[in-house]
Amino acid sequence: MYKGGSHLSTTPNMEDYLEVIYMMFEEKGYARSTDIADHLDVLPSSVTKMMKRLDEQGLGVYEKYRGFVLTSKGKKIAKDIVDKHQTLEDFFRVFEIDSDNIYEEVEGIEHHIGKETTHCISSLVQFFENHPEIRKSYLEYRKKL
Amino acid sequence: MYKGGSHLSTTPNMEDYLEVIYMMFEEKGYARSTDIADHLDVLPSSVTKMMKRLDEQGLGVYEKYRGFVLTSKGKKIAKDIVDKHQTLEDFFRVFEIDSDNIYEEVEGIEHHIGKETTHCISSLVQFFENHPEIRKSYLEYRKKL
Ligand SMILES: [Mn+2]
Ligand SMILES: [Mn+2]
Repeated sequence: MYKGGSHLSTTPNMEDYLEVIYMMFEEKGYARSTDIADHLDVLPSSVTKMMKRLDEQGLGVYEKYRGFVLTSKGKKIAKDIVDKHQTLEDFFRVFEIDSDNIYEEVEGIEHHIGKETTHCISSLVQFFENHPEIRKSYLEYRKKL
Repeated sequence: MYKGGSHLSTTPNMEDYLEVIYMMFEEKGYARSTDIADHLDVLPSSVTKMMKRLDEQGLGVYEKYRGFVLTSKGKKIAKDIVDKHQTLEDFFRVFEIDSDNIYEEVEGIEHHIGKETTHCISSLVQFFENHPEIRKSYLEYRKKL
């Protein structure tokens, strides 16, 4: 019954915007409304609304024609989400999870894991990558279940 | 940007209701609106609304005074969620994830992992429980990161 994202003040929806904006920000230094709308497959009016909301929360600056520029606070939250996404993708890959919906699952989970949990999953992935014999032994164990 | 639960036709909110109803169903054979409202900390009117919705979807039968009885379809979906919840709790315990919000994280993640992912996490938990030396070696590895 937990509704919020992993940051008390951001919702999963806000985090998805921050995630996309961060990627564009890294690439070009700003994010255009139309590019965000394309990427998230939402209406430009939804993007404008969210940009204003993120601006109000001090996560970025919305400039009508230029687009959106992240503040350092916004950048930090966005980077956390991007890192969580990457850690979860690594987890699905290293543990050979044969789901048809990996991307959807990652996109869903990333909003619900905290810093400590992300660190544990990441260390588990590294541990298995650095111990291929344990990884092999686990995969064989799973096959026999 | 994935909004749905792990079952195409159910939302995270519906799944939370099914989870609670299942627990009560297991215990007493039915679930009373007032008990559900208490447990989920929502208004009785929200419970009535959701019971009607679950009834419409063939997941249970809503009887005004008796409460809610799950159909076998509803029971199956509810049991899946309960199992996912348990698997995730085991994961946090066995991997000693020191989060302040384990319950909230589990409640959030459980709606976003599919059958295959749940099976992999569950097998990972079992593998570590059955190989305490590997578990110890992982925890030491993590400490050094
Ligand atoms: Mn993502
Ligand atoms: Mn739960």
